[in-house]
Parts: sequence; structure tokens; C-alpha cells
Amino acid sequence: MTELKNDRFLRALMREPVDVTPVWMMRQAGRYLPEYKATRASAGDFLSLCKNRELACEVTLQPLERFDLDAAILFSDILTIPDAMDLGLYFAEGEGPKFRKVLRTAADVSDLRVPNAAVDLDYVMNAVSEIRTALSGRVPLIGFSGSPWTLATYMVEGGSSKDFRHVKKMMYATPEVMHELLDKLALSVIDYLNQQILAGAQVVQIFDTWGGVLSGEMYAEFSLKYMQKIIAGLIREADGRPVPVILFTKNGGQWLEQMADTGADALGLDWTITLSDARARVGSRVSLQGNMDPCVLYAPAERIRAEVKKLLAEYGTGNGHIFNLGHGIHQFADPEHAKIFIDAVHEYSAQYH
Amino acid sequence: MTELKNDRFLRALMREPVDVTPVWMMRQAGRYLPEYKATRASAGDFLSLCKNRELACEVTLQPLERFDLDAAILFSDILTIPDAMDLGLYFAEGEGPKFRKVLRTAADVSDLRVPNAAVDLDYVMNAVSEIRTALSGRVPLIGFSGSPWTLATYMVEGGSSKDFRHVKKMMYATPEVMHELLDKLALSVIDYLNQQILAGAQVVQIFDTWGGVLSGEMYAEFSLKYMQKIIAGLIREADGRPVPVILFTKNGGQWLEQMADTGADALGLDWTITLSDARARVGSRVSLQGNMDPCVLYAPAERIRAEVKKLLAEYGTGNGHIFNLGHGIHQFADPEHAKIFIDAVHEYSAQYH
Repeated sequence: MTELKNDRFLRALMREPVDVTPVWMMRQAGRYLPEYKATRASAGDFLSLCKNRELACEVTLQPLERFDLDAAILFSDILTIPDAMDLGLYFAEGEGPKFRKVLRTAADVSDLRVPNAAVDLDYVMNAVSEIRTALSGRVPLIGFSGSPWTLATYMVEGGSSKDFRHVKKMMYATPEVMHELLDKLALSVIDYLNQQILAGAQVVQIFDTWGGVLSGEMYAEFSLKYMQKIIAGLIREADGRPVPVILFTKNGGQWLEQMADTGADALGLDWTITLSDARARVGSRVSLQGNMDPCVLYAPAERIRAEVKKLLAEYGTGNGHIFNLGHGIHQFADPEHAKIFIDAVHEYSAQYH
Repeated sequence: MTELKNDRFLRALMREPVDVTPVWMMRQAGRYLPEYKATRASAGDFLSLCKNRELACEVTLQPLERFDLDAAILFSDILTIPDAMDLGLYFAEGEGPKFRKVLRTAADVSDLRVPNAAVDLDYVMNAVSEIRTALSGRVPLIGFSGSPWTLATYMVEGGSSKDFRHVKKMMYATPEVMHELLDKLALSVIDYLNQQILAGAQVVQIFDTWGGVLSGEMYAEFSLKYMQKIIAGLIREADGRPVPVILFTKNGGQWLEQMADTGADALGLDWTITLSDARARVGSRVSLQGNMDPCVLYAPAERIRAEVKKLLAEYGTGNGHIFNLGHGIHQFADPEHAKIFIDAVHEYSAQYH
């Protein structure tokens, strides 16, 4: 494998010294970039873009051409696993993801087949190796998966949800069915992420977008436990380097201690958590990634810079900080403002290292 | 005024001894009740129901006929104030609340008129006095308002939102405009809640449904500060009794200490907060209201009872607990399950008092 030219991100994940704070953005390859929209239009629909290795590689690299980013992230969707379980993922215009088949009963769950990632999700692995080659050691490549609980919400609700009533009904009324589903998903995610690592992913992130809609007790039992199981099953070294794992539960600020106990190397933080508090609570055990509100990018340049300075000061001196947004960059964000943000992180962080 | 026959709720709010833990449900007068749907159908649309004193009174009392509730809550909408500011509230079927006029600029905000609640919102006061009379001292009546920040989100977005981009853009890019809007709303809410108290409300609750989408710093500056201002401006005694104030910020579990500093008598808690933790943090200063996940009502009777027992044990012995759901009861909840829930609170809580 080619030597890694910029290893700031990997070093920060392992809490090693860096020159400046590394930065990347969740959803950095996306609709806020006109060049992304052009590629997507040429691909047809969103899933066709994910399934085409050349185009998935092209959009993954687009933000790196514009910005001084310290990591690339595989362009894909979090719902590839349920799609490989034959639920029939599709995207209704303006409505987000939907499934043709939804899971509601014990029979629905027991019929569900755990996919073989190398075979059933080969298009993802092809994209990973294509991107890794194209990156040519410029920055590390992040692979990712949705968490079992997060995937289950879409599979049981049939798409996005506001109240999560079907999936919570399954959880409260038939917890054994819910656990069977989550077990199958955890096995699927382990295989999926390990295949990504074998194909070239140098870091993996688990996106638990909907863990925060649970009570503390239910989060531990129905989301965190399965993420812990995944982390325990992952390949943790490749090319002679550790493969760090980042755990991100949106709205999980109350459970950082438990998240740090999973064996993850870093926790992703949304903007509702004060970075200094998070560091005081778990900073001796894990790196912290985050946590600027993506809506700050709607403000003028000076306000963006002030927010970057404030968050750098909140984290303070020392290792273990990766700058990121607290959630994905919005489709209406101005790319020029994203550039101001990224440059500000590098410019103002040197004094903390 | 008629003597209050059941003052458990008021006593618990003031952290005085009670025989059993009082219980009510947010949105207890609502679509999960067939009798509510019948009354609403006879009223025409939702706003006509809110604006008709007899019908608003009728639906307020409906859940008390079915269940052994310890409080009634005014039937109304949180968006009455912006409607009285001439923004033209309407409800698009299946889409939630919408405004004909939205606020985006400094001029939009400076043109906004602070309503006179006694005049412009007289229909609410008429409903309050009608309900208070009809209750005849059976249980106390709760008045309520949305928080300034929560009202502002709807007024700037023009309705419900997922990413709050317009209102957050206003907040980050032109904070002085946002503060002007929130100042006007705080003044409006003070007048609105005081008029409700004068008309007969014995408790008031401030619903900060969307404070939890902010960072800790922005929450303090753009939501909490204005709720504190409101609490400082409220009539705190009527009919020789204190008028307790309940503050509810959904997803505000990280900020309970600051919420307890506002002068509120009680904090409403959603289910993401562990009740024992909340009590340890702020239970010596405020009562706590909550916090069962409304989705537990989708489970069988035994599961509902087990959850009630668990939450009672989490709060433990002593005063200052009001049982409630962590958010409004869902429209698909079974009224029989609501009854099981309410009866279980009374049955299993005696041992803690």
C-alpha cells in the first residue's frame, strides 16, 4: 500500500501528537456541492450512484479537491445492509429512504437473511478499493455503517419516522423479536465493516443516528450493547496500523461514559454537548470528534471563525480532538463557508498542539 | 372559588407530602380518544375547536371522565400567540401547523406587534374560565404556553422543521434580530400566562419543545434566558395559593441545573433522562414531572405496569414527583392502556409516600 502522506486524523484518533487539529465533515460528499449534483444527475438515482464504483469514487474525492480535508469518507448509504436483506430500498423524491418490505412480526424477522458482505455488498467493497487507490495515500479513508438500532428503525418503520412507534412497539411489546433483529444486524455490520477494512478502509465509524430517541436503559440494552458487540468483532489492525473505530450516537450526550466503555477509540459528538464537559467526562479514555452545529455555516465568515475558535478553546491543549460538524453538512450550506470553516480549524488550532 | 377536592398535583409541585403520586398526561385531551374525534368533527377544524369555549371545555374534561387523573390541562394550541400576531396560523392535513406569513428579515420582526392577551386571545381566557367552572374543584387546571424559542422556530420556519435552518440562520447570522423577536415573544407569553392565571389557571407549564436542538451555550442565550424572564414576570399566587410553574425542555437533559435556576417549581422530563439521576442533580430544588416514554403504551398491560413500578422506584421515597409521559400521548395509543398506566401510578406509588 502507498505511504500515507497526511496521518493527522489517524494520529488524533489514537491520541498521538499532531501539528494542527484534523478536520473532516460528515456528509462532505453531498448535495451542497454543485459538482456532486452534476455527477448524481449523470448517474440517474441516488442508489445507482452508490452502486457505481467509478462515480462513488468520483464524488468521494470531490470535497478533497476543494478543501484541505484530513480524511475521506466512503460515499454510500447507511441502508445498504437492509437493502442486501431484500427489503427493497428506494428513495421517494423529497421523502427520504423507503422500503418496499417492512418488518413487523416475529416471522418477518426470523425470515431475514444475514447477507454475505463480500458477495451481496460487493459494490461497496469495489468502491472502497477504488477510492483507496485513487487517494494514493493523500488522506485516510473512513468506512462506515449504520448501527443495528438505527438500521432497525428504518426497517420496522419502513422509512424515516418522527415517533418511532412501530419499532418501539416491537421493542417494548416483543423485546425477544427486537433482539433477534438486532443480533442479525450486528452480525451483518461486523461482516460489512470487516470487509470494508479488508478492501482498504483505514478507520470505521458507526452511525447511531437514532439511539438518542431511547431512554437510558433502552439505549444500553437495544443500541449500545450491539455496537459494543460490533466493536469486539472488528479487525483492529491493517497495513501494520491500528484501524480506529468512531462511535457516534446523535443526542447521546447523556451516555458518553457508557459509550467510552465500548472499546471505541473515539466518540462523535453532536453540538448539544459542551466539548469541555465531554473531555472532562471521557477525554482520558477516548478521542472526541465534533462538534460544530452545521447551521453555523449559514452565518457570515467572521461568525464561523469565532465559533471555530470557541470550540478549539473548549477542547483546549493536547491530543485527541478531531474537528467535525455535529451532524452532516446541510444541502443548503455554501461551499465557500465550508472552506472558511476548514481553513479556520487549521489556522487557529496550531497553538493548542 | 370552589374548594379544591384533589390537590395532590399542587402539593407535589410544592414538594409537600401526598398520599399517592399524582399523574396526568401531556396531550391527554386528544386524538387517541374517540369522543375527542367526535367533538372535533362537530367543530369543523382544529382551530375552531380551540376557539369555541364550550367545545374546548368539553374536550378538556373528556379524559377526566375516563381516567383518574390528578390535573386537567387547558385544551388549546401552542401557536395561539403567533396567530394573534397576525401570522395566519392554519393546519394543513397531515402536515402539522403552518403560517401564511413567515418571518425572515429584521423588518419582519420589527413590524411584529405584541398582542394584548385579554383582548386578542380572549377566546383562550374564556375557555380557561369555562373549564375552571366546569371542573368545580375536582382537580386543578393547568394553563400553558410555548416558550419564546419554540414559538420562534415555527414563526421563522413557517411550520414544523427538521433542521431549523432558517431560524438558526437568523440566530447565528443576525443574533440581534433573533433577540428582538424573542423579547417580543417573552413579553407576549408573560401577558398570556398571567391572563390565564387571572382567568383561573392554577398551574402553568412552559413547553420548550425545541430548546433541545440548540448547543448548551445557545440554549442558555436564546431559550432559557427568555423562560427565566417569563417566570420572573408571572403572577405566582392566586386564591391564596401559590401558582406553580413547570418548565419542560424536550431533550434538555444536559441542562437540568440551569433549568432549576430559573425559579421554576418543577421541571418536565422526557424519557431520555434517568429519573434517579435527575433527582440527584436537581431534586432538592425542584419537583420533577415525568417521564415514561409514550411508546410504552403500545406494550401489553404487564409491561406498562412494570415500567410504572420501575420509574416509581427510580424516583424513590419522598415528595416532589408528578408522574407523566415524557411527551404527549400518541394518537394511536389505546385509551385502555392509558387507563392501565394511570391506575398503576396510583396503585403502586402509595408505598413511596
